Amino acid sequence: MSRLLRSGRLLNAKKHIINFVSSAKDDKAFLMHLVEINKAHIVMLTENGIIKEKIGKKILSTLSTTYEKIHLSDDIDDAYVAIEEEVVKNIGVEIGGNLNLAKSRNDQVATAIRMNLREELLFLIKVIIEFQENLLSKSRKNLKILMTGYTHLQPAQPITFAHYLTAQFDVLQRSMNRLKESYTRIDLCPMGSGALATTSFTINRQRMSELLGFSGILENSIDAVGTRDFVLEIIAIMSILGVGITRFVEDLIIWNTIEFGIIKLPDSFTFTSSIMPQKKNPDILEVIRSKMSSIIGEFVSCAVILKGLPSVYNLDFQEITPKLWRVLKSSRECLSMLSDILENLEVKSNLLQKSSLGFITATELANILVRNHDIPFRIAHNIIGVMIRTLIENGKLLEDITPGLLENIAKKTANINLKIKSEEINQAINPTMVVESYNIVGGPAKKQVKLMIISREENIEKSKDWVKRNQGTIKQSKLFLNSTINLILQSNT
Amino acid sequence: MSRLLRSGRLLNAKKHIINFVSSAKDDKAFLMHLVEINKAHIVMLTENGIIKEKIGKKILSTLSTTYEKIHLSDDIDDAYVAIEEEVVKNIGVEIGGNLNLAKSRNDQVATAIRMNLREELLFLIKVIIEFQENLLSKSRKNLKILMTGYTHLQPAQPITFAHYLTAQFDVLQRSMNRLKESYTRIDLCPMGSGALATTSFTINRQRMSELLGFSGILENSIDAVGTRDFVLEIIAIMSILGVGITRFVEDLIIWNTIEFGIIKLPDSFTFTSSIMPQKKNPDILEVIRSKMSSIIGEFVSCAVILKGLPSVYNLDFQEITPKLWRVLKSSRECLSMLSDILENLEVKSNLLQKSSLGFITATELANILVRNHDIPFRIAHNIIGVMIRTLIENGKLLEDITPGLLENIAKKTANINLKIKSEEINQAINPTMVVESYNIVGGPAKKQVKLMIISREENIEKSKDWVKRNQGTIKQSKLFLNSTINLILQSNT
Amino acid sequence: MSRLLRSGRLLNAKKHIINFVSSAKDDKAFLMHLVEINKAHIVMLTENGIIKEKIGKKILSTLSTTYEKIHLSDDIDDAYVAIEEEVVKNIGVEIGGNLNLAKSRNDQVATAIRMNLREELLFLIKVIIEFQENLLSKSRKNLKILMTGYTHLQPAQPITFAHYLTAQFDVLQRSMNRLKESYTRIDLCPMGSGALATTSFTINRQRMSELLGFSGILENSIDAVGTRDFVLEIIAIMSILGVGITRFVEDLIIWNTIEFGIIKLPDSFTFTSSIMPQKKNPDILEVIRSKMSSIIGEFVSCAVILKGLPSVYNLDFQEITPKLWRVLKSSRECLSMLSDILENLEVKSNLLQKSSLGFITATELANILVRNHDIPFRIAHNIIGVMIRTLIENGKLLEDITPGLLENIAKKTANINLKIKSEEINQAINPTMVVESYNIVGGPAKKQVKLMIISREENIEKSKDWVKRNQGTIKQSKLFLNSTINLILQSNT
Amino acid sequence: MSRLLRSGRLLNAKKHIINFVSSAKDDKAFLMHLVEINKAHIVMLTENGIIKEKIGKKILSTLSTTYEKIHLSDDIDDAYVAIEEEVVKNIGVEIGGNLNLAKSRNDQVATAIRMNLREELLFLIKVIIEFQENLLSKSRKNLKILMTGYTHLQPAQPITFAHYLTAQFDVLQRSMNRLKESYTRIDLCPMGSGALATTSFTINRQRMSELLGFSGILENSIDAVGTRDFVLEIIAIMSILGVGITRFVEDLIIWNTIEFGIIKLPDSFTFTSSIMPQKKNPDILEVIRSKMSSIIGEFVSCAVILKGLPSVYNLDFQEITPKLWRVLKSSRECLSMLSDILENLEVKSNLLQKSSLGFITATELANILVRNHDIPFRIAHNIIGVMIRTLIENGKLLEDITPGLLENIAKKTANINLKIKSEEINQAINPTMVVESYNIVGGPAKKQVKLMIISREENIEKSKDWVKRNQGTIKQSKLFLNSTINLILQSNT
Repeated sequence: MSRLLRSGRLLNAKKHIINFVSSAKDDKAFLMHLVEINKAHIVMLTENGIIKEKIGKKILSTLSTTYEKIHLSDDIDDAYVAIEEEVVKNIGVEIGGNLNLAKSRNDQVATAIRMNLREELLFLIKVIIEFQENLLSKSRKNLKILMTGYTHLQPAQPITFAHYLTAQFDVLQRSMNRLKESYTRIDLCPMGSGALATTSFTINRQRMSELLGFSGILENSIDAVGTRDFVLEIIAIMSILGVGITRFVEDLIIWNTIEFGIIKLPDSFTFTSSIMPQKKNPDILEVIRSKMSSIIGEFVSCAVILKGLPSVYNLDFQEITPKLWRVLKSSRECLSMLSDILENLEVKSNLLQKSSLGFITATELANILVRNHDIPFRIAHNIIGVMIRTLIENGKLLEDITPGLLENIAKKTANINLKIKSEEINQAINPTMVVESYNIVGGPAKKQVKLMIISREENIEKSKDWVKRNQGTIKQSKLFLNSTINLILQSNT
Repeated sequence: MSRLLRSGRLLNAKKHIINFVSSAKDDKAFLMHLVEINKAHIVMLTENGIIKEKIGKKILSTLSTTYEKIHLSDDIDDAYVAIEEEVVKNIGVEIGGNLNLAKSRNDQVATAIRMNLREELLFLIKVIIEFQENLLSKSRKNLKILMTGYTHLQPAQPITFAHYLTAQFDVLQRSMNRLKESYTRIDLCPMGSGALATTSFTINRQRMSELLGFSGILENSIDAVGTRDFVLEIIAIMSILGVGITRFVEDLIIWNTIEFGIIKLPDSFTFTSSIMPQKKNPDILEVIRSKMSSIIGEFVSCAVILKGLPSVYNLDFQEITPKLWRVLKSSRECLSMLSDILENLEVKSNLLQKSSLGFITATELANILVRNHDIPFRIAHNIIGVMIRTLIENGKLLEDITPGLLENIAKKTANINLKIKSEEINQAINPTMVVESYNIVGGPAKKQVKLMIISREENIEKSKDWVKRNQGTIKQSKLFLNSTINLILQSNT
Repeated sequence: MSRLLRSGRLLNAKKHIINFVSSAKDDKAFLMHLVEINKAHIVMLTENGIIKEKIGKKILSTLSTTYEKIHLSDDIDDAYVAIEEEVVKNIGVEIGGNLNLAKSRNDQVATAIRMNLREELLFLIKVIIEFQENLLSKSRKNLKILMTGYTHLQPAQPITFAHYLTAQFDVLQRSMNRLKESYTRIDLCPMGSGALATTSFTINRQRMSELLGFSGILENSIDAVGTRDFVLEIIAIMSILGVGITRFVEDLIIWNTIEFGIIKLPDSFTFTSSIMPQKKNPDILEVIRSKMSSIIGEFVSCAVILKGLPSVYNLDFQEITPKLWRVLKSSRECLSMLSDILENLEVKSNLLQKSSLGFITATELANILVRNHDIPFRIAHNIIGVMIRTLIENGKLLEDITPGLLENIAKKTANINLKIKSEEINQAINPTMVVESYNIVGGPAKKQVKLMIISREENIEKSKDWVKRNQGTIKQSKLFLNSTINLILQSNT
Repeated sequence: MSRLLRSGRLLNAKKHIINFVSSAKDDKAFLMHLVEINKAHIVMLTENGIIKEKIGKKILSTLSTTYEKIHLSDDIDDAYVAIEEEVVKNIGVEIGGNLNLAKSRNDQVATAIRMNLREELLFLIKVIIEFQENLLSKSRKNLKILMTGYTHLQPAQPITFAHYLTAQFDVLQRSMNRLKESYTRIDLCPMGSGALATTSFTINRQRMSELLGFSGILENSIDAVGTRDFVLEIIAIMSILGVGITRFVEDLIIWNTIEFGIIKLPDSFTFTSSIMPQKKNPDILEVIRSKMSSIIGEFVSCAVILKGLPSVYNLDFQEITPKLWRVLKSSRECLSMLSDILENLEVKSNLLQKSSLGFITATELANILVRNHDIPFRIAHNIIGVMIRTLIENGKLLEDITPGLLENIAKKTANINLKIKSEEINQAINPTMVVESYNIVGGPAKKQVKLMIISREENIEKSKDWVKRNQGTIKQSKLFLNSTINLILQSNT
């Protein structure tokens, strides 16, 4: 604990105790924002006559070099204390000792976390957008690449790689929307809440919010310093996104096996074994899978820490913030790496060459019995089921179906006198034609996927605008703060 | 597995195996919605000429009594199968066998969960609104009730009970906003996605969405049947809300101790001990705390289940949905019970009677040194710190301060020649006056809290409107579906 | 709350409040044990002259029918109260009112949970043993069935199915050992601890332990009623076991795909699709995977509930116990079902027929260069690596290697003049011979796996003995308690 | 990826990709152990004639300086590769290229983790023992310090501080026992398992185990490289321990409040506020509480990562190990800090001075009615309940009871003609006498607590022996390995 605070109520603490509770190293993440808060606060105090302009000027002047001078280590409590020490060192306690007048560690830390989080979120969303762009451009290139659509890891129906990738786009989009919605809850300024009960000095909270580029204040002062729900919210969203990514990655790992052989990872993204020279292990995908998985654990840590805490501020909060930054950094890296892999991925349709997967069009055979032959769906489904069992038991494939065989089974199974033509069968078992027949909004037919790509490209533009707008607001507020400071410094009073 | 499905590709499964995988019991939650989906689907198929009107009429006619007739037990796979069996039992497979034409278990279950979830969410939000109303009316009654504001469970600064309660309002409000935002992601219709690739029948997804009262379709068919991220999202939000509630409840449990004695739980909400006749245990609060805590575990269960699953549908999904309903039901009950407790709570300000808590106004004493005597804040903070140590070491209280004592300490500690009047000190250590001086937006002064209450009352009106509007949409769609069915049944073709 | 308790310190609670906190339904799990505890307690009180023999006899006599008569519903607090009410109803409060003399709800519930848990654990361990027996008998049948050993889901080296299954045995064994070790911590009797501080009556805790078949007492009375760490411990072990099972199941699901085709699930354990007649979905395996996954969430729920609770008893405990029973029941069912599936599984070696997997013996080729030709391992590894790349680029397989090719590459890559014979190569690339050459303790060679099977069969016998011994102790204690009661009832005093 | 491995099957990977998957930094934790493994392996290969003695000598000779020379950074894959590169750099690939003959990254990493974990566990257990010693010596000093025993945070019955502390001892002891049991599962050697299938070289696994000081081998080679259940197990145990600690800490935080005032934290372990000079915040306790809480999240991360992974090795494993080390380090620090705090804690019995807590002896009053006046327990319980309500309603305390009052209530409530003496009442409401009357094994009476302390002191000796024995074994094995190496180096062949 700083001598600044120790000399009053409490005696000095031992060094290893300071080290134990110190958050200084973790505070690096938002030191710059803390300095900005101090600047804005002194501006506001000066403007409102709470401190004299002369004092305000001196403090503002020294604060301009504070960020560069501070070295955060475990030997000090936290960045909050470090800033005051630095200021006092430069201009003495007589003047510098007013730095923390009418504010508190509690409202400053809450504000600084939000400021840093705003920037982190915008950065993250940009990475997601780049990933989405890759998904769409890869989709455009693979509009016609048939692939097996699996459910339960069993071949279900034919789709296209582009159809699959646009689904992944939407998974990302929903989490991005969640992040954007959170942003509006984060972009609120706690400053002025003090320790929990505001202050008896006539401060201007709205002005602080403006100087720091927030969209408004976080009103109730108890709530403003006592909530960390926004940390839980962001990590929860990242958990959801993470789960989505693990599923995408799991697909890729399975499709990259020799047995599935649907995709080929480029050499530069795989690793061999130390003793098995034939191996091409999808190491990066595995690391992404595990890193994205462990966000769930970070969510649990934060939720457990907060559970049952008395309201308002407790130091337990301190353990949460580093987890937030860690999750965001790790997610960004994983998403960016996965986006790279996607870009360099080779797709090898496994559908047309592997006849064993041909049963995938069986639904369509049943549909044709319904559509062309007026057989009720459930009966058609049974007939085709029996036919497939027969084929498999005889080691045959879908292309071995003959009208005769099908007619026999229809008779035996359902007592139906079917008359079917070879062409009907051929059409039904041709995956390319089947995919094109799935010409329903959201389906795999080329036309539908193209429409999806186009509307998602528009979506990307909107997302980019959103990021740009918010980045602009932040940048603007920094310029505004600095010019306001300069005006004060240059004024003659 | 139903004989309907078993007679084709697979032989019969043993009963205990069916029991093991059956979701039938859990499907009760959305059986009604599944029936509605079937109705809407048959309407749409008939309208688009995919099935003949004659067949459509027969199926629609029998579906009108299906819901009442079905008894779900572990002996059948799931509700999906039960409905088809019931229909076929009534009107034969020749006609009823078309019930599942051009749709799949996958899109139906996804749709039914969303339909039920919409209603559950609206119900939950109503409970939250009622709770919030209680918070505000309790606030209005306690605008002047001073209480100790704690941080780190140590007395920090004086606030009022009303100030505290409006903070709790805001905690709830943020989670309600999250739920509302989720609602827009849930209120989208997967129908028409089939197993994962839509269908070759020319169905109309937009029409399905309209008949079921959705705000639009969930476009990509792979995504529509393959995502359960909305379940994660709702349980994540409920975890966050739950953590907030555990903190509120923790406050109440601690304040209800004999030692704190800030609140008094009514007898009807406490329980005595089986062997200790003097006990008044806050059992209900403890049950609420633990129930709200365990939502975090439900989130983990769902996230772990989904982690690393191949994309699209896997039966693992089935284990998730019951957890969702369980969380929502339990949360509703807890919130409602807590709201009841709040209403019947007695508040006993511990601030004015317990002089040991009087140091709570120390910040204000320091502030006065700054404001009236031009002492830099940090130095004032130190002087007051030393003074408090001195008082405690001598077993004295804040009210024992005299100008002389303070002046002495100012001299000794900071070499300052202070001249302070008794009135200044008395004002600074009077909690009522201190609270009124915290007259900053969001602070505890009566004026500020009143303003907060008024704006939150407006908020409640908006929330109520939102619920009403969405309930109206759902109700309207049910009427619309029924009238559409009646039109079809009455038409002569 | 029972009128028994309400009439004293507290007024009546409303019904919905009782319902909310009631644990009665969940208490069914250990009602029988609670009755036994009451019997033992009255025996002990009588033996020690704390209650008069006459009273003891009357209570013991009525307790003999209590279990059958009690119907637990949400309208009563819990089983503890229900028993006293039933006894008082039968023999009046004058006599029956002594039932809870010198004991408390706290020590009784803690004891009853431990008694039920003992039985549940023994039951669970029996299920694990049966599963292990299946693993060994399946191993014996598949000693020669070669299979691809995968790491990173890429073919690594050849193993046998028996080798794989004995690994699964060991995974189960370790968790069984953990359960056995826990058992010694659970098999301790809290009775006599009272609410938390024992009692001023001269009870005999050792006697209670004996009458209830415990191996000893749980000494410190605060700890005895205040810990639920054994619940966390069991659920933690089941989480670990669960994670192991999900990995086993994941193997089976992947090996059951058409693409891998290593195993074939029997029809009776798979399900078809509602619209895709060709599907044979591994539904049961998926349900097992998800059920075993969600134990992690149950662990979290329990840990979160307990986190930060003040020590000794809090009603939060009540929410934990039902989760324990749920985990144990669900695990038993899953393990038993998986054991069934294993028994009926068909294994189809994918190794000899699929030449694309043949690179799996590449390590051995490198080894031969080292062993027979004195080439340093890393260089041999590189040579074979280059050779495999060459083969793949030319669309060739391992069996296409010729001495000439290998010699060329050795020259080019490492400037080594290799002279190798066809036989050497043929031996190295023959998976059967390679597997037999892995003749190291713990390895896949038939001899080694046989040895492992034999020692594990001995292990099973030991496990069975352990279960039998503990079941015997419990059974014996019940007989002992009853005969002690009979002696008291028949004595003439 | 090292050029050593890249030059064969795969082309070079880009640097940022290496960085992304590199575990090198995390591998520092066990680099030393990896070097030892390499030494032992070369010894064993030499002894068994698998490599020539000349080569063995050269490699062993260079390995003696390897550990110091290696600098692990993100630019290399991992420590495994770094060691081979270092050796090859020194003695060329012709000789050094044999370093990884007949072993694999998989078995080495698994072995090294276990070796490091053994040492970490012994270190941790020593810290726990020291903590336990503090608990016992503090107990000895506080045998007579009465305190309120709370359940539901409401005063229940009187206990002593010593009684409370021995309960905390037992909580720690159980987790220590769990750790010791885990140790036997961890202290097994995977070496020789190779990638998963052992090797065709005639290695000696037993010898490796001996040279590395293991108690035996981890037999099945698939299991040996494919399991990380021991990581889950340790983190699960630490979660359970952590939950226990959070409850202990919660007690201390609450007891340290001004309102409870049971303990007094020394100044050096508390911190003041930045703006509230009167504050003495229990910051360290809060940090301990949150750090111990977040172990649960680490457990979840690891479990989620492992869930559903295909068996044997996947790179996902790599993300788990750093979490293990982090948990152990953080736990050690927290336990040690908490032990320090305990040592310096002042206890202020709140029982005798605060008459409002006096109802705590009410159970004893009821007991006296039973014991001396033959009133059935439930009726006695009710009488005392009514009496307490009467006292509270009249603002009176337990010491205000008179025989007359009690007799009146007995008459009114239960129609009992009670005749009770003042001395009886006085005895029953005297906490000191009540505590001494709780003279049952495990109870708070001084005699009982003394006995508990003595037996626990013996326990500590056993624990110390256990640690010493295992540390001895490890130390011995290092000496043995070195002397074996020296013998080889000095031999003349």
